[in-house]
Amino acid sequence: MINAIGYATKSAHASLKPYEFTREEPAINEVQIAISHCGICHSDVHQARNEWKNTVYPCMPGHEIIGTVERIGSNVMKFKVGDVVGVGCMVDSCHKCSACKEGLEQYCEKGFLATYNGNMRNPTKENNTLGGYSNSIVVRDDFVLTIPQNIDPSDAGPILCAGVTTYSPLKHWKVGKGHKVGIVGLGGLGHMAVKIANAMGAEVTVITTSAEKREDALAMGAKHTILSSDDAEMKRNESSLDFILSTIPQPHDVNPYTTLLKRDGVITIVGCIAPLTKPIDLSKMITDRRTLSTSLIGGIAETQEVLDFCSKHKIVPNTKIITVDRINDAFDEIDRGEIDFRYVIDMASIKDKHEEKTLAGKLGLTSH
Amino acid sequence: MINAIGYATKSAHASLKPYEFTREEPAINEVQIAISHCGICHSDVHQARNEWKNTVYPCMPGHEIIGTVERIGSNVMKFKVGDVVGVGCMVDSCHKCSACKEGLEQYCEKGFLATYNGNMRNPTKENNTLGGYSNSIVVRDDFVLTIPQNIDPSDAGPILCAGVTTYSPLKHWKVGKGHKVGIVGLGGLGHMAVKIANAMGAEVTVITTSAEKREDALAMGAKHTILSSDDAEMKRNESSLDFILSTIPQPHDVNPYTTLLKRDGVITIVGCIAPLTKPIDLSKMITDRRTLSTSLIGGIAETQEVLDFCSKHKIVPNTKIITVDRINDAFDEIDRGEIDFRYVIDMASIKDKHEEKTLAGKLGLTSH
Repeated sequence: MINAIGYATKSAHASLKPYEFTREEPAINEVQIAISHCGICHSDVHQARNEWKNTVYPCMPGHEIIGTVERIGSNVMKFKVGDVVGVGCMVDSCHKCSACKEGLEQYCEKGFLATYNGNMRNPTKENNTLGGYSNSIVVRDDFVLTIPQNIDPSDAGPILCAGVTTYSPLKHWKVGKGHKVGIVGLGGLGHMAVKIANAMGAEVTVITTSAEKREDALAMGAKHTILSSDDAEMKRNESSLDFILSTIPQPHDVNPYTTLLKRDGVITIVGCIAPLTKPIDLSKMITDRRTLSTSLIGGIAETQEVLDFCSKHKIVPNTKIITVDRINDAFDEIDRGEIDFRYVIDMASIKDKHEEKTLAGKLGLTSH
Repeated sequence: MINAIGYATKSAHASLKPYEFTREEPAINEVQIAISHCGICHSDVHQARNEWKNTVYPCMPGHEIIGTVERIGSNVMKFKVGDVVGVGCMVDSCHKCSACKEGLEQYCEKGFLATYNGNMRNPTKENNTLGGYSNSIVVRDDFVLTIPQNIDPSDAGPILCAGVTTYSPLKHWKVGKGHKVGIVGLGGLGHMAVKIANAMGAEVTVITTSAEKREDALAMGAKHTILSSDDAEMKRNESSLDFILSTIPQPHDVNPYTTLLKRDGVITIVGCIAPLTKPIDLSKMITDRRTLSTSLIGGIAETQEVLDFCSKHKIVPNTKIITVDRINDAFDEIDRGEIDFRYVIDMASIKDKHEEKTLAGKLGLTSH
């Protein structure tokens, strides 16, 4: 067994605290990774706080994992010790269903194995995986990604979730040159969507509730912004967009956005996994044959593809590096929708915290 | 001016009664048609009863019109006197916008001119077109359809609305051999959808609330039926269909149907132009990248295409021919969702009613 230390929470209302645990030694097809960085995704907040009603505790989030290969199983050919690698939202799937065979492990018919909180369709304490808010992880080689050399390890993490989650639907719906694309929400997902859609050749409009995010949007590559709370501005932009990606991470009313679509336009929702707040008004869709679709993260091959796409187009997530003890404050800021960048945890900081904690433990002050 | 007689209603709660009016003489590019038959669409009921809150009275429904060319304008080359022709849901559009140029007049950016109740986006008493529940109509030649010789005039009407409304999305989403297709609702639209999808090579499942419609569905070409009120049956059929066409003509909850779709499946709603009754539950869509779309009738070229498709595949709507005095009873039956065929009015019967009415008028008994 490998002794590991991470940050976890023991209930929906508790904050995350240092947590010691063990990982299995790598099997012959597995890779042991020393984690250097982990991005904080809005899903981490949802899951830690049990907002999807399926969290098993202790919950250790983190699925934007970057690190260095520390050890490999005897059958691993693709990686060698010292490689900079990543692990995204999934660590396994059935490998047999039609989705897995098509490289769409995120739609695995048996349910993929999430990087944390086990199998989302069947979570139990026993199969509850612990994620990347830790100093070490062991993952089968075909779920490990290669980080291109020109992407700094401290920048790469958000590509593994925010990157592929937005890249996948943009590619699926064939967004490219000549398309007018709207991105709703300018948080972790939204800001990556702006950069990726822009690199795909689309003319990007950011639709936001926050007037103060407008300048950031333009700096990231958007050509236009729409303040969604301004009815006149929304009205003026009716029937103007070919494709909209909604990254709003909470239940919302989608009707105001559908009318921004041209005939045959598509809105794809990626941020929210719950009932919307209001019924779809078909009268706002049928007169222009509009479509509402959904998309969940991305497959492993597609995750490598978006890493390579970002490398080629020099796309770097906007990040702020924090130490582990700032995780709980970051959660609150993300929850309030205040940030249009990604927090990335410097996992080296856990060593210091670990030593502090070990000392505290020796002094009888440990919290678990 | 042409003296005409039809059946119209003067308010949402009144029944339809004989109504005398005039039509303009045909212009150089117009065709005057002696109407022999007109199908009764569920929309006729919605519109006559002001369920879309835009009805202008008097309202004379009817957009599944079949008749014989009686007179043509001097520039009309496509038709000659005596031709059997049809008029569907539209009688004009702007001819200039991108939709019109693509042959998608139903999505005309200025709003198409509906065959009855004028321009749906801007109805006034002055531009309120009167439809096919009448003995005569004058329409520009490019909105007049040719009825194939092997389709009986009494059968052809429902193809012009129910036919093209279901054909258009089935074609748009490339339904064909090897696809498993669900048709929700087995009324006027649904029964045509079953026949058309079947002729396209799909394996058809009818999803209905009425156990007594199951046999009819199989007789029409469906391979399977699902009783939507039977939770176990619905559960058993989860993730089984590639495409669903919902023909439910009232606001409803679409969530139970989305889960019947396979990964990447699409549900297209054609029957309802209003808010659904419940918000979309994204958790039932996102895990399989499901899509909800919409579709409105069909373009003129596509209407001719579905007429020719029905001719080729020997598809005939299930109809019951009625005399004009049965229209109000038919409306009630349609409203109750009881029928899985199309009522078609024998417009010759209006002549008798006209004579009765004229006599009544002479006796001072006229109702308008």
